[in-house]
Amino acid sequence: MVILGIDPGLKHTGWAIVEACGSVCQARAYGCIDTVARESTATRLATIHDALREVIERYAVQEAAIEDIYFGANARSAFALGQARGAAILACADLREVAEYPPATIKSAIVGGGNATKEQVGYMVQMALGLDHVPTPDHCSDACAVALTHLYMRTKSERIGRAERRACA
Amino acid sequence: MVILGIDPGLKHTGWAIVEACGSVCQARAYGCIDTVARESTATRLATIHDALREVIERYAVQEAAIEDIYFGANARSAFALGQARGAAILACADLREVAEYPPATIKSAIVGGGNATKEQVGYMVQMALGLDHVPTPDHCSDACAVALTHLYMRTKSERIGRAERRACA
Repeated sequence: MVILGIDPGLKHTGWAIVEACGSVCQARAYGCIDTVARESTATRLATIHDALREVIERYAVQEAAIEDIYFGANARSAFALGQARGAAILACADLREVAEYPPATIKSAIVGGGNATKEQVGYMVQMALGLDHVPTPDHCSDACAVALTHLYMRTKSERIGRAERRACA
Repeated sequence: MVILGIDPGLKHTGWAIVEACGSVCQARAYGCIDTVARESTATRLATIHDALREVIERYAVQEAAIEDIYFGANARSAFALGQARGAAILACADLREVAEYPPATIKSAIVGGGNATKEQVGYMVQMALGLDHVPTPDHCSDACAVALTHLYMRTKSERIGRAERRACA
């Protein structure tokens, strides 16, 4: 199962390809798409969209997961984030699933608590993926965290499904 | 000159094709793209994007203009609007220009004042385009207003350009 995790933003969009082989998770690649503030919104959104399309094709991505917004943000930054997120989701439109997870759900899944710091998330991402470093910049580490959250959620719902089938049998 | 005006929104996106032939402006078509709230964000954004791509091809659109946000909106609605706007702008990415106008600029251009009501805008759109009715729903009338604003702005800057060239000659 090849998952694309996305931490969207108009300036910086982090992405990560996480693959599950049995019970082992590994990061195949990650990166950050940067856009230039002096360019038009259309150009910046196309940069995000086209770069993600390329990643999806190159790594034969099957499902994507994207971070949801923290609504404490002010309207202006929520709007900029919304536009970037729209471009990112559109890039994934042909995939069979684009899951959305709020930051608190991601932190709970990765660290076990919704109030985890960025450092804790980075450390747990490094451990879970068996890396010798924390992915940087933060956007990459966050993108890995989103992809891992999606894998954990899938595994959990598959286990519940199996338990239910056993109970019914 | 064929202009596409867009009034973006996640639930309803208004669009209008306005054409300028010399000093006459006419509406060739307008419509509203509706999305269903129970569908995924990915599906809703793809609906907006694909419908606008079809309109752009069908009417051989040359330039687009899109309404900017009113930042008094709360973060949650700004975010939803941002996503829809991102999808709409991406649909226009191949055009030579995607102009962005804040609501106050549009109202000033159409009615002569930033505090105009929806009814005033609708009435002036009807007059400017020589229609026998106000385009409905409001999203269509607003999309016509954005397209007209872009035409007025283009004409104004062309006139200034000509005056400057005369002054330099």
